[in-house]
Amino acid sequence: MAAASLGCRSQENRPIPEPGPNEVLLRMHSVGICGSDVHYWQHGRIGDFVVKDPMVLGHEASGTVVKVGSGVTHLKPGDRVAIEPGVPREMDEFCKTGRYNLSPTIFFCATPPDDGNLCRYYKHHASYCYKLPDNVTFEEGALIEPLSVGIHACKRAGVTLGSKVFVSGSGPIGLVNVIIAKMMGAAAVVVSGKLFSLFYLNPKFWVLLPPETLEFKVGRDLSASRLQKAKEVGADFTIQVKKETPQEVAAKVESVLGCMPEITVECTGVQACIQAGIYATRSGGTLVLVGLGPEMVTVPIVNAAVREVDVRGIFRYCNTWPVAISLLESKRINVKPLVTHRFPLEKALEAFETTKRGEGVKVMLKCDPTDQNP
Amino acid sequence: MAAASLGCRSQENRPIPEPGPNEVLLRMHSVGICGSDVHYWQHGRIGDFVVKDPMVLGHEASGTVVKVGSGVTHLKPGDRVAIEPGVPREMDEFCKTGRYNLSPTIFFCATPPDDGNLCRYYKHHASYCYKLPDNVTFEEGALIEPLSVGIHACKRAGVTLGSKVFVSGSGPIGLVNVIIAKMMGAAAVVVSGKLFSLFYLNPKFWVLLPPETLEFKVGRDLSASRLQKAKEVGADFTIQVKKETPQEVAAKVESVLGCMPEITVECTGVQACIQAGIYATRSGGTLVLVGLGPEMVTVPIVNAAVREVDVRGIFRYCNTWPVAISLLESKRINVKPLVTHRFPLEKALEAFETTKRGEGVKVMLKCDPTDQNP
Amino acid sequence: MAAASLGCRSQENRPIPEPGPNEVLLRMHSVGICGSDVHYWQHGRIGDFVVKDPMVLGHEASGTVVKVGSGVTHLKPGDRVAIEPGVPREMDEFCKTGRYNLSPTIFFCATPPDDGNLCRYYKHHASYCYKLPDNVTFEEGALIEPLSVGIHACKRAGVTLGSKVFVSGSGPIGLVNVIIAKMMGAAAVVVSGKLFSLFYLNPKFWVLLPPETLEFKVGRDLSASRLQKAKEVGADFTIQVKKETPQEVAAKVESVLGCMPEITVECTGVQACIQAGIYATRSGGTLVLVGLGPEMVTVPIVNAAVREVDVRGIFRYCNTWPVAISLLESKRINVKPLVTHRFPLEKALEAFETTKRGEGVKVMLKCDPTDQNP
Amino acid sequence: MAAASLGCRSQENRPIPEPGPNEVLLRMHSVGICGSDVHYWQHGRIGDFVVKDPMVLGHEASGTVVKVGSGVTHLKPGDRVAIEPGVPREMDEFCKTGRYNLSPTIFFCATPPDDGNLCRYYKHHASYCYKLPDNVTFEEGALIEPLSVGIHACKRAGVTLGSKVFVSGSGPIGLVNVIIAKMMGAAAVVVSGKLFSLFYLNPKFWVLLPPETLEFKVGRDLSASRLQKAKEVGADFTIQVKKETPQEVAAKVESVLGCMPEITVECTGVQACIQAGIYATRSGGTLVLVGLGPEMVTVPIVNAAVREVDVRGIFRYCNTWPVAISLLESKRINVKPLVTHRFPLEKALEAFETTKRGEGVKVMLKCDPTDQNP
Repeated sequence: MAAASLGCRSQENRPIPEPGPNEVLLRMHSVGICGSDVHYWQHGRIGDFVVKDPMVLGHEASGTVVKVGSGVTHLKPGDRVAIEPGVPREMDEFCKTGRYNLSPTIFFCATPPDDGNLCRYYKHHASYCYKLPDNVTFEEGALIEPLSVGIHACKRAGVTLGSKVFVSGSGPIGLVNVIIAKMMGAAAVVVSGKLFSLFYLNPKFWVLLPPETLEFKVGRDLSASRLQKAKEVGADFTIQVKKETPQEVAAKVESVLGCMPEITVECTGVQACIQAGIYATRSGGTLVLVGLGPEMVTVPIVNAAVREVDVRGIFRYCNTWPVAISLLESKRINVKPLVTHRFPLEKALEAFETTKRGEGVKVMLKCDPTDQNP
Repeated sequence: MAAASLGCRSQENRPIPEPGPNEVLLRMHSVGICGSDVHYWQHGRIGDFVVKDPMVLGHEASGTVVKVGSGVTHLKPGDRVAIEPGVPREMDEFCKTGRYNLSPTIFFCATPPDDGNLCRYYKHHASYCYKLPDNVTFEEGALIEPLSVGIHACKRAGVTLGSKVFVSGSGPIGLVNVIIAKMMGAAAVVVSGKLFSLFYLNPKFWVLLPPETLEFKVGRDLSASRLQKAKEVGADFTIQVKKETPQEVAAKVESVLGCMPEITVECTGVQACIQAGIYATRSGGTLVLVGLGPEMVTVPIVNAAVREVDVRGIFRYCNTWPVAISLLESKRINVKPLVTHRFPLEKALEAFETTKRGEGVKVMLKCDPTDQNP
Repeated sequence: MAAASLGCRSQENRPIPEPGPNEVLLRMHSVGICGSDVHYWQHGRIGDFVVKDPMVLGHEASGTVVKVGSGVTHLKPGDRVAIEPGVPREMDEFCKTGRYNLSPTIFFCATPPDDGNLCRYYKHHASYCYKLPDNVTFEEGALIEPLSVGIHACKRAGVTLGSKVFVSGSGPIGLVNVIIAKMMGAAAVVVSGKLFSLFYLNPKFWVLLPPETLEFKVGRDLSASRLQKAKEVGADFTIQVKKETPQEVAAKVESVLGCMPEITVECTGVQACIQAGIYATRSGGTLVLVGLGPEMVTVPIVNAAVREVDVRGIFRYCNTWPVAISLLESKRINVKPLVTHRFPLEKALEAFETTKRGEGVKVMLKCDPTDQNP
Repeated sequence: MAAASLGCRSQENRPIPEPGPNEVLLRMHSVGICGSDVHYWQHGRIGDFVVKDPMVLGHEASGTVVKVGSGVTHLKPGDRVAIEPGVPREMDEFCKTGRYNLSPTIFFCATPPDDGNLCRYYKHHASYCYKLPDNVTFEEGALIEPLSVGIHACKRAGVTLGSKVFVSGSGPIGLVNVIIAKMMGAAAVVVSGKLFSLFYLNPKFWVLLPPETLEFKVGRDLSASRLQKAKEVGADFTIQVKKETPQEVAAKVESVLGCMPEITVECTGVQACIQAGIYATRSGGTLVLVGLGPEMVTVPIVNAAVREVDVRGIFRYCNTWPVAISLLESKRINVKPLVTHRFPLEKALEAFETTKRGEGVKVMLKCDPTDQNP
């Protein structure tokens, strides 16, 4: 099998690409490792996306413009930029209506067959490179990608001033949703920790987890350290879920909040959690599905329907980079503590092993040998 | 068992009620029989709603004001009105935000323990009685109730100019949705007929159908007569579903429309149909669940989530009477053909038997012995 | 003065252009003359848009694909298409959020310095050429442009099922709004005819009309023929405005409708009409400004504010072609009667003179010498 | 003239009222003085609202339930509550659709002829009394009223994550909007200080200020102390406006923000400020009119229209108390510093004189002789 590049041959030299008229060439600086990168490396596929040829990983990235195409006007060499990994290839109905993430022909870094940007030099569509203000670091720029999942989810959820929110799952994506929900004015956020860790469950991809993987992870999340982290980033309450039924989880959520939440952001993809999400959400509210699990799920659909609880999924994100940059520039948000490990690009294998072991929160690869700063 | 009134003692005399300060006393004129009425009559319950004491049936109704409470200013004796059967009992958060149908303490005609209005005289909250223009008949007024289900569903679906809509199910509620979707500017509507008739499946109630009931109904809808009716009320296309898988149904819908519909209005509640509704709906679109079936349903939730297909239910309706009256007054809508049978109130039993046999479309009971006109 | 091309040298030969990778070359078939075309021809400018070099006019157009660029996949030679004249030049924030009409660098046919498509051969971005179904004529395709103004206005207005709508002004754009509002489910539409004709006032451009122009046009609209036309296309009521104050106009509107309209679509740009639009609109409703007049207008802003009447303008349109094509394909809309004159391209001067005189409704230029059919 | 109660006879004894079935009797605790109270006291009218009979002032209030009507279930004697001063009198279309603040027959404290609650005992509709959590003080409860203006304005403005917001005016209402905008996720807020103080301009009423009043106030706001206050409550930038034209103000706003704001919240009502608000707002954005000035205003309406800048007013607020209580309970918001003066009810005249002189920010009257705590 032609697996992901790191799996078979972890690093190789390729020619520096030449940017097209609307592209920029970037000297890469910081690239975060995502669970999906690890999954491609280990399994060579995620759902229907199968790695057939060697593929460069990486899609949480930032770098410096070194060359601009002839048609590029808003960037110039020397500009530091964050990279939005999804670039629509055609101006179809989804692009025209502002939902370009749904465009079926979209390019997306490190989703087969599209290469990612875990490399020294990389070219990208200039319109999807966003200039970083001087007071925003490269690593903050790279972290916009996971942050974007929370922004898109909370926007689709309709979080607003005074919202009571239940975030189901305390993995990285759960944490990001806590941060964003609070920043959008949520009055109270409760987070649940589950028996099932969600390390590989990535909202950006359709992941089918084999049962043994779940077994393997049982207990990790239980350690309470993640719920502690959730509190640190702004959760008002946390609940530990063990053997409760979905209805019991819902009752627990209502109990700690003092009312049912208008919004539930489900970040696990586990069937019982989705069920709990429906039972927990107040009539007229919204359940957003961020975590993805098995293809078919049994849910109390009548309960949701007759209480007009809307069920909405998200696919990646759109229109989130400018939002995130504004927040980072104004120092309203602090994502720096999320980076717990750094490795130079040459030690990528070690970095991937670390991520695979689930150590820390976010592992950063530093692609610029002359600048390994955050 | 204390079943619904008609089941045990079909008719009885009760004193004429006295309207409270904000109520009006009505001389009832026309009351349509709904599947839920039949269900209460036959089974004494619908889901969690159990008839414990004798209950007056009827909630699709119109009549004439004969007396007004001291605080009523917008109505006077002699006014002909349509009756909205749901009246919130308290100004809770749902009422204050315009979604009074979700108020948990709402009064609703002919939902235990609240009496309906299939009687000679009936008092109702004046704010939920809407004056009928001279050119709108009592029966049109009574038909606003089923029409409201379609209005609420299509509004929640976001049907707008140019929408492509898939209406799943060709029972009365399916037909109503065809009418309303077209009136809201839908460019094309396709309707499916199923093996499963939906006679008892009522969007206004949580109905748990025993399998034998379904067996009994197999074949009824097949007759193609309903799809013919759907075409008459505005459907652009119809499809006959037999043994197709949900994916095959979705493919058929796309094929006849020339594209995937942005909106699916599911009116059957059958699991396979809900699945088909998800597969059929275009990315970024909406699936509205109107028909209700079993409590737990297995659905391809990941397919919906990653394509951002929103799944929304409806519970009855709110703010639909003024809309419907405007449409009826301006003659934009013709619901008169829906009435296929009429019985005087004294022959209520016969009317219920007719409805139970599934004859015709809508059976009207005429409560005013001095005026049996439409 | 370097006026519009027709003014100085009405026709000239230019080389057939070569389509770029994402473009198609079109053999033009039908091009409608818009008031703005006449205005550029006569005055060489509209607001800040000044014709400095000879400019090809025309932007209501349809034609046949004769050549496709290397990157075009959804069109092929022989395809009949309608042309959306506005093509964003860059993927800026407005494009990414689905409001590409607001992109400040957008290309727009026949807006200086961009050439229009009133010619034999013309190249255009393929993504903004929409394939016409076999049952839609070229002229219907060309009429999508003015229709789009109504679609965009009524969408921004939030017209929906049961809306009561006041369309202020009975010129072509007023008529288009009547058609679209009804198609979106408006229960009743009232149209006003004014002393001031609006022939040159084009919602797509910022037009400053000198007072004498207004004088000249006084009386034209009074003829009642336009109000008659408004009734033909679906208006439920019409009102003739003479010397009424804005408040009196508002009272008249309420009187004929039986209530205040939730929505007013103002298509004249005249100060008194905008004032009437505010007074006329129901609390919580929306006034959409389609017609544009003088730069500064005195309005009863407090009246609008404390009744939460939103005031929203429109700039051209976006995402309207697919909607219009769906409606034309399903025969839900009949725009054919709008075409009252046809001229072969060689007689363009005569066509423009006819338009200038205000004869008929829409004048079509037929650019294909081998096919002058509708 | 029959002026407001305080003007003619500052205090009088009235019988303790008896609560109706849906009402509660309250022992009043804290009542803030609003500019409108002062205005009624001094002028006996605000716009069309004329004080004809002695009227009790006060509408920013909180107290303790001492008696409940027979139909009240969610409150009991001893409950501490905040009072929403507007109570719809009938279930009209505005109430049913969630916009009860627009109901034309609404009761509103201290708006003639309705009495306010600046007294010892007061009865109010129970549904508009909101239980205060133990950790929220009476004064915080009273401050929910002015806070509500900011909540309603920012919600109508559509402030969301990453919004750039221009708050025009640095009076109390400007400050409240800064607080709320930031809490809803605004990335950057710029506030302008004007020559014109806005003390009497109240967003809850239609206030016509005589020119001499404006003269009198010139210079107050200039002191820069208010802009300093704005910074303290969260403004990222402030600008001092002196003799700039509206366009120059807009340019200044863009300059400090680094881009045009999507949202402008105009809190002055001054014509030049409204004009600046239009010029300043980004295409596709929203200008919310909170401050109210002269009835007729001259505005660059074409500039707003062709850039699709929506202009929306607000009338008081609706559905804000639960939101505010959630925020206060979770300690997300600190309004305590806004209270700068306290007087016992017996010294009401002194309190009004203090407010009239414009000292401090918010003056509280303490109505409970046994508890004068915050």
